[in-house]
Amino acid sequence: MRIGLAQQNYMIGDFKGNFEKMKFAIEQGIEANADLLLFSELCVCGYPPRDFLEFKHFIQQCESIVSQLAAIAGNEIAIIVGAPSVNPKKEGKDLFNSAYFIEHGKIKYIANKALLPTYDVFDEYRYFEPGNEFNVVEFKGKKIAITICEDIWDIEDVNPLYRIKPVAELKKYQPDFLVNLSASPFSYIQAKTRMEVVQKNAVQFHLPVFYCNTVGAQTELIFDGGSMVVSADGEIIEEMPYFEECIRFYDIDDSGIRPSILFGHDKLIQDKDKISLIHDALVCGIRDYFKKLGFQKAILGLSGGIDSALVLALAVRALGKENVWSVLMPSKFSSEHSIDDSLALLKSLGSPYKIIPIKEIFDSYTQTLSPHFEGKPFDVTEENLQARIRGNYLMALSNKFGYILLNTTNKSEAAVGYGTLYGDMCGGLAVIADVYKTEVYELCRHINKDGVLIPENILSKAPSAELREGQKDADSLPDYAILDKVLYKYIEEHLGPDEIVALGFDESLVTRILRMVNRNEFKRHQTPPILRISKKSFGSGRRLPIVAKYLE
Amino acid sequence: MRIGLAQQNYMIGDFKGNFEKMKFAIEQGIEANADLLLFSELCVCGYPPRDFLEFKHFIQQCESIVSQLAAIAGNEIAIIVGAPSVNPKKEGKDLFNSAYFIEHGKIKYIANKALLPTYDVFDEYRYFEPGNEFNVVEFKGKKIAITICEDIWDIEDVNPLYRIKPVAELKKYQPDFLVNLSASPFSYIQAKTRMEVVQKNAVQFHLPVFYCNTVGAQTELIFDGGSMVVSADGEIIEEMPYFEECIRFYDIDDSGIRPSILFGHDKLIQDKDKISLIHDALVCGIRDYFKKLGFQKAILGLSGGIDSALVLALAVRALGKENVWSVLMPSKFSSEHSIDDSLALLKSLGSPYKIIPIKEIFDSYTQTLSPHFEGKPFDVTEENLQARIRGNYLMALSNKFGYILLNTTNKSEAAVGYGTLYGDMCGGLAVIADVYKTEVYELCRHINKDGVLIPENILSKAPSAELREGQKDADSLPDYAILDKVLYKYIEEHLGPDEIVALGFDESLVTRILRMVNRNEFKRHQTPPILRISKKSFGSGRRLPIVAKYLE
Repeated sequence: MRIGLAQQNYMIGDFKGNFEKMKFAIEQGIEANADLLLFSELCVCGYPPRDFLEFKHFIQQCESIVSQLAAIAGNEIAIIVGAPSVNPKKEGKDLFNSAYFIEHGKIKYIANKALLPTYDVFDEYRYFEPGNEFNVVEFKGKKIAITICEDIWDIEDVNPLYRIKPVAELKKYQPDFLVNLSASPFSYIQAKTRMEVVQKNAVQFHLPVFYCNTVGAQTELIFDGGSMVVSADGEIIEEMPYFEECIRFYDIDDSGIRPSILFGHDKLIQDKDKISLIHDALVCGIRDYFKKLGFQKAILGLSGGIDSALVLALAVRALGKENVWSVLMPSKFSSEHSIDDSLALLKSLGSPYKIIPIKEIFDSYTQTLSPHFEGKPFDVTEENLQARIRGNYLMALSNKFGYILLNTTNKSEAAVGYGTLYGDMCGGLAVIADVYKTEVYELCRHINKDGVLIPENILSKAPSAELREGQKDADSLPDYAILDKVLYKYIEEHLGPDEIVALGFDESLVTRILRMVNRNEFKRHQTPPILRISKKSFGSGRRLPIVAKYLE
Repeated sequence: MRIGLAQQNYMIGDFKGNFEKMKFAIEQGIEANADLLLFSELCVCGYPPRDFLEFKHFIQQCESIVSQLAAIAGNEIAIIVGAPSVNPKKEGKDLFNSAYFIEHGKIKYIANKALLPTYDVFDEYRYFEPGNEFNVVEFKGKKIAITICEDIWDIEDVNPLYRIKPVAELKKYQPDFLVNLSASPFSYIQAKTRMEVVQKNAVQFHLPVFYCNTVGAQTELIFDGGSMVVSADGEIIEEMPYFEECIRFYDIDDSGIRPSILFGHDKLIQDKDKISLIHDALVCGIRDYFKKLGFQKAILGLSGGIDSALVLALAVRALGKENVWSVLMPSKFSSEHSIDDSLALLKSLGSPYKIIPIKEIFDSYTQTLSPHFEGKPFDVTEENLQARIRGNYLMALSNKFGYILLNTTNKSEAAVGYGTLYGDMCGGLAVIADVYKTEVYELCRHINKDGVLIPENILSKAPSAELREGQKDADSLPDYAILDKVLYKYIEEHLGPDEIVALGFDESLVTRILRMVNRNEFKRHQTPPILRISKKSFGSGRRLPIVAKYLE
């Protein structure tokens, strides 16, 4: 039996575009003489469709596409398609998250996702009733167990998240192999974990697994693909590429599983180094954000610091050097090297730029405000004002030319609120706001690995916002090496203050950092969407109250 | 038996403050010789605690407060307290949303919420395992059925949201009465619906109901209280006040239920008119936002239009006239009457103001930008720039004096994206962004009902952003009377384009409006928290993708 996996990049709600992609895959499947073609979770509407699922009209479009795909597949190939389905029972939520098994142009079976992730960035129980009936589907003399994403993830017995185990239920019907339709988003530990999970399922239930993941970015969520086929004893037959579309076929018979026809790739390569993965994910995230919104060009403020340098380098890789405009906006507090370093970077990248000094307009603001300020001294107000003037220039150019402004905030800053709302926190997309400052350095070195693109001076100088005379980040923030560790323990690992102190960090420092994180929730509430590369990013996966008093 | 209801206003994560409040209620209960005192859902930590629930340290604090309350109640009074509890089984999520029944200073029973709302603003399955064991608790010869909020809400049989009915399960144990601990947020239809739900439960299960709700605002969610006691035949014994704390006692015996001792109120009044409710909710929302964050003063931009006039009037009621600073920022496009109308309003409210013209700084920006704009004509860029200059002034004053900027966007504008990011969309709190423009007029008339506070000219002139010569909202937006109806059908009622057209609206208009709503998700992503007064507000209760193509 020849089975294909279609690892494709869909757009949420773009029924026509998604249909065309899937039609192409079906045509490839027919050409390859495949028996069965797998798609990914909710491929028909894109994942995650969020509250669009609450519109009957949206569900009707999904059903219509499923019918059209069935008609195309006809008698030539069987397909398994991910789409919502209507719960026929009156009790429970009105929808299931389903996999439609289609043979001879007809829906033969609908498998419903039983485990609905409702944590971090996932809201599935918001929309779906958990599937609670299990069966295999018979196809050409074989029995197939169909699962969807999370259904295979609750594999450990120590502290399982759910009360039931779908694969154990399905195993009772003696399937010949297991398929899984996924929309499993990237984090830099995800590829490794995902492979372990698929292997554990194969071994524990002694079943070959065909695992088909989606690929591409959906605003903040980046799907890395990495679809795979694993034998019943846990051997990886093949892993498909990361961050790229790919259609691949495999032959399965009594002697085992072998890779067969491959479309569109000479070889399958996955770079599994943490920093390489983050780099590729961010490039994919920028590229898809622009492409799916129908924009070509980006603009950003280039400060001479490392954060904007990294964002520029990533954007140039994602969009092409001619499509990324930098704006240098020196103030009276800008150091000489800020401009020089920026110009050196621009020279090495070959991307266009403008210089718009902000000194005059800043003076004009402060003069106008002076009588209203009642003699109060220079403080964070004037620092913020500079950042906001820059925000105004960037947004004016963005508006006038239709370029999207890229935000250059890093995760350490976003965590402690070291940034100006409506100033440097402006933008359509926050490229590195899930990347800690220490990881920003690692990414820059990674980019420089085959020759210096980001000048060494940008990497070696002390970080500074340059919003007052002689300012350095270190004046008001702990050393990033320590700060990032404490933040990681609090944000990624959910440790409380006592647990972090017990690891050997200074108590007053921990208290100060956690307080900064909690108090700045109001700023993060108004940030652009953040490309998610860690297991806990700011944004939809981390939901904290703005008005609260915890740890204050 | 004397039973008390403590309708109180807690702060999320403020364990000390919440404890002191509850201690006060227990002392009142002891003084009143009450047998039992009910609190509201998750009162110990405040509702909704969101991802704070993912911290062990936070859960430990909750448990500690429960123990301290038990010690205070001791042998003198029994209490039912809302707090998370740890799931003792290995399967499922690690927490329950629980009600602790405490007698003689000991936890005698823990009732777990079975129905976990996971829709709109609610995320409870994100944190909690649904309770799946039911029993009553025996107390002084009576059997009490304990439920939590949603447990009593899935009362209809037509299309129930859940597979089980907790009160039906509890009824099997022959309880004498039902108690419900709630944190049920306000919308302008909620008070009526809530009363119907409680009455239906009483009648359907023939049980007296003691319903205790929380009160006060938690960022965007406003809890209106309205706790109540209902007899077994559905008679309202008493409804407690809206938007105010209240501790009230009731006597129940074989002859029925009677109100008993009341603390802190002469009489209980609830104004149930839609517009009155919205007015009171918004005042409560502003007041608690400031009070809980520890701020006294607000600032806002006063344009001469109706939206900022309404926000000013509401803020003056919530914070006191001396605590709300208006800033008038005329441009060259501002009409004469904008300033005159604003000054008339300020005179009638007696609140302070500043005037900062923006013409010069606007000219300075456009001159600087002119060489970069490559001769492109005046467009939305220059309109946005004016709004952003105003945003800068407001934020500068906010920063310098520690005032919170109030956002004055209404729901119609927020829906169609008629506003400038980082300009008029700035602010710490969006006061009326869940109020449609047509409702803005109704609220102003309500405020004027006992004498004109908002000058008639502000109510009668044509709405305009005054960002270009002779601009009127009607130039680029449909008439608000129609726009608001279409928006309501799409946003509140989830009707699709075909369904809205079928109601008699013009097809091209519907298409245009829905497209505007969907395309401006990126703007709403960066707005301040919005006080929620409808059943579907922008914010955490409405989650749409930013990059999508649905209805485009």
